[in-house]
Amino acid sequence: MSIRTVVWGENVHEQKNKVVADIYPTGMHQCIADALNTDEGITATTATLQEPEHGLPLERLQETDVLLWWGHAAHGDVSDEIVERVAEQVHAGMGLIVLHSGHFAKIFKRLMGTPCNLTWREAGERERLWLTSRNHPIAAGLPDHFELENEEMYGEPFGIPEPMETVFVSWFQGGEVFRSGVTYKRGAGNVFYFRPGHETYPTYHDANVQTVLRNAVKWAHNPAKRIEKPNDAPNVPVETALEPIEERGPKLHQAGEEGYK
Amino acid sequence: MSIRTVVWGENVHEQKNKVVADIYPTGMHQCIADALNTDEGITATTATLQEPEHGLPLERLQETDVLLWWGHAAHGDVSDEIVERVAEQVHAGMGLIVLHSGHFAKIFKRLMGTPCNLTWREAGERERLWLTSRNHPIAAGLPDHFELENEEMYGEPFGIPEPMETVFVSWFQGGEVFRSGVTYKRGAGNVFYFRPGHETYPTYHDANVQTVLRNAVKWAHNPAKRIEKPNDAPNVPVETALEPIEERGPKLHQAGEEGYK
Amino acid sequence: MSIRTVVWGENVHEQKNKVVADIYPTGMHQCIADALNTDEGITATTATLQEPEHGLPLERLQETDVLLWWGHAAHGDVSDEIVERVAEQVHAGMGLIVLHSGHFAKIFKRLMGTPCNLTWREAGERERLWLTSRNHPIAAGLPDHFELENEEMYGEPFGIPEPMETVFVSWFQGGEVFRSGVTYKRGAGNVFYFRPGHETYPTYHDANVQTVLRNAVKWAHNPAKRIEKPNDAPNVPVETALEPIEERGPKLHQAGEEGYK
Amino acid sequence: MSIRTVVWGENVHEQKNKVVADIYPTGMHQCIADALNTDEGITATTATLQEPEHGLPLERLQETDVLLWWGHAAHGDVSDEIVERVAEQVHAGMGLIVLHSGHFAKIFKRLMGTPCNLTWREAGERERLWLTSRNHPIAAGLPDHFELENEEMYGEPFGIPEPMETVFVSWFQGGEVFRSGVTYKRGAGNVFYFRPGHETYPTYHDANVQTVLRNAVKWAHNPAKRIEKPNDAPNVPVETALEPIEERGPKLHQAGEEGYK
Repeated sequence: MSIRTVVWGENVHEQKNKVVADIYPTGMHQCIADALNTDEGITATTATLQEPEHGLPLERLQETDVLLWWGHAAHGDVSDEIVERVAEQVHAGMGLIVLHSGHFAKIFKRLMGTPCNLTWREAGERERLWLTSRNHPIAAGLPDHFELENEEMYGEPFGIPEPMETVFVSWFQGGEVFRSGVTYKRGAGNVFYFRPGHETYPTYHDANVQTVLRNAVKWAHNPAKRIEKPNDAPNVPVETALEPIEERGPKLHQAGEEGYK
Repeated sequence: MSIRTVVWGENVHEQKNKVVADIYPTGMHQCIADALNTDEGITATTATLQEPEHGLPLERLQETDVLLWWGHAAHGDVSDEIVERVAEQVHAGMGLIVLHSGHFAKIFKRLMGTPCNLTWREAGERERLWLTSRNHPIAAGLPDHFELENEEMYGEPFGIPEPMETVFVSWFQGGEVFRSGVTYKRGAGNVFYFRPGHETYPTYHDANVQTVLRNAVKWAHNPAKRIEKPNDAPNVPVETALEPIEERGPKLHQAGEEGYK
Repeated sequence: MSIRTVVWGENVHEQKNKVVADIYPTGMHQCIADALNTDEGITATTATLQEPEHGLPLERLQETDVLLWWGHAAHGDVSDEIVERVAEQVHAGMGLIVLHSGHFAKIFKRLMGTPCNLTWREAGERERLWLTSRNHPIAAGLPDHFELENEEMYGEPFGIPEPMETVFVSWFQGGEVFRSGVTYKRGAGNVFYFRPGHETYPTYHDANVQTVLRNAVKWAHNPAKRIEKPNDAPNVPVETALEPIEERGPKLHQAGEEGYK
Repeated sequence: MSIRTVVWGENVHEQKNKVVADIYPTGMHQCIADALNTDEGITATTATLQEPEHGLPLERLQETDVLLWWGHAAHGDVSDEIVERVAEQVHAGMGLIVLHSGHFAKIFKRLMGTPCNLTWREAGERERLWLTSRNHPIAAGLPDHFELENEEMYGEPFGIPEPMETVFVSWFQGGEVFRSGVTYKRGAGNVFYFRPGHETYPTYHDANVQTVLRNAVKWAHNPAKRIEKPNDAPNVPVETALEPIEERGPKLHQAGEEGYK
């Protein structure tokens, strides 16, 4: 069965900025979905900020294996309720791929627990991505380095937790470096952040970038059945303890009582 | 200079529950602070939920090297604003030690990005903590294992991100195990979670537990000057690039403009 | 294409000890291979210490996707040359699963860089394995815990580097705990250590253990083309630098010279 | 008490190459030791390849808190016995700082378990080190980046295990990047690799580099008493089990017997 993938796009600059609209006439999200759909193992659709529930009703997320997220100008317009909904699905096993300026998306900060900040410069300079984890599944079919002739610069220090794995590190013409591909696990969900993708450059038309995204969808896909209640903290009654024990000492909770949250 | 430490206590059960009040007549927070103050390298004071701003005004946090956090029944009563204030200070370099039922404290979930859930049983059973990282500074002076004759059980799976280091793993009489001492880094701040400490047992009077807490305060202390604006994402203008570059291609931002957040 | 798997068994106690021979009449390695072969995605064969080159000639390893390793009494009889050969294939992308007393196998210590020591007791006591990473692919289809009624005890501290992920932690009847399932990456190779499997108990006939092993083979399999020279440190001549640079300052090496190793 | 530090230098090029001898007339090791000794918390001496036991008799290592290692042309001349001796002391708690071409030193490969390879170019190009972990103790007193005008290039992919923390990433003028400062823990010993230090450039005279080295010595120092037998795997007899158990099932070992190694 193919991997059910949703590409979420903020879809703001495509509507307001002629440069962006010219590069991505059907929207960045559609360009990315098209690139994913060239792989027969992936079935990608799109969702945008402007749709009801930002295009992410619970039922849809529950049937989504991997979600990609691109946002920039309108992070603050994303509803907190939907951020929590997405976070819960990640904890339950949905994969999440956060793109470029999504480093400041509510959902990424929510899952990282850190500022996720960086330095930046919009000068159309050269970026060269170096592979730091040879033969990593996210780098399948890629050489040890590849270039994007025009990109926005993101520089270290990048305010993220230490990654599970650092897959790519970028070199920038203006003198900076950046951990451009980093993996995490949050609950049962695999999370990948991938740096490139400034909206005024044709980055998502680049063949290597598209290969990374297809690989990342496969890597992030957790085929296990989604965890039903990923936040539950069940009480284990004394009578059902795996080893026989007797209750001792004073208690705070009465039998059958819920724990505090 | 000694490490300026604040022990934050929810201070609810000490007021309402005779069992707890008898074990901790001055409050759990005060008992912990007293234990810390036996070390001349540490100066510990207390703060509680009931004080204005929960006893954690910004000025106090800015002069706090390490904060300990014990909460249970009233996680929901902690103001979101103060949680963000604490998180920002951790990102800026303040150490944080989260105790026992604090696994569900807003500040811990905020920094972990995961559910932080577990299974539990209040039966006064035996807990034995095993050291999994020999000679770790947090275990200084401790044997390879030590016991608490009566404790609440917390069981795996524990819904945390993979720790930087796992320092202790607990064995429970009823058949469960738990990663009882785990370290993280969030921004410039060191974070340690330590499992024992159910309020109906005299855990914080235990000599080994007190040793862990004193060690943890020293481990969590980052002597570097606090980062001033830990969330900043500064623009680096083309003219000040470290390597000479020329601006190329279309731009979204005008010179001197702020980035989106 | 199915995953080409080799189960390496020391095959000493099966030949000398009646208890072991009765439980594993065709050898532990064959019992494990049989369990793997029930999955049509896996094709498992065996190799033993007594065969020429311990059954692991280079050509065979180059066509092996995942190698499992069980050894105990004869770690010292394994040739250093073959240990290096296996290590190089792991670095090049071969998966490796180390079982039970293999914690002291030369190949495991070679890849970990640590003592890999532990405490132990052979008393046929109960072991209960707890899942610490929900929905991890290695735990697919397993409940949150499962038991082995008779096993050898291994206790913490376990002298390993901090794992990439801790998947299982064991509870022992006699009071110890142990990190029983841990993952690593070494070069392009995925490495998994799995604790159970003392030769005097029928552990490898257990359905849950067999499920773990089948899952682990799939997890450890890196489908990428094996890296050809995983130890190479190529010189990048100035003339072929990706950014134009001029040679400056004094040099130690002449053009075209090999680096030191 | 000050941190007892030994700077180990291969001391080959200083003797044979005029360029190196002119930059480091007393040897690179002595230059580094002098820089460390400007800190009153550190007492640094030197050891070289040419001394008996390479200057590292067991008694000396047992009284060494932190060892620094610089080697390049003569990795193969270092005795395997002494490599094991150093490894055992690291496992027991000695700190180790590996410098530049020491990435291929036997002791570093021994502790990492990976090829530790990279790409390289000797062109005297500019290196800029970026801090990736703000306020890390190893970066105390340093800005977010600093430059070395002439250095050898080392490029990714760097064949190391995923670090505990990545502290520095380097930008090179010729277009490469490199994880230049990475931390590990091996047994009770803290390990730090620091990239700069090619012998034909005055790198160890650089103020920022010297600051990193002084910080790293303090970070690597584990004040705990050295573990006496870091490789021991003690048997825990049934009679002394922490929880009362009875022996069950068949046994391989007789009472009091040693385990296999």
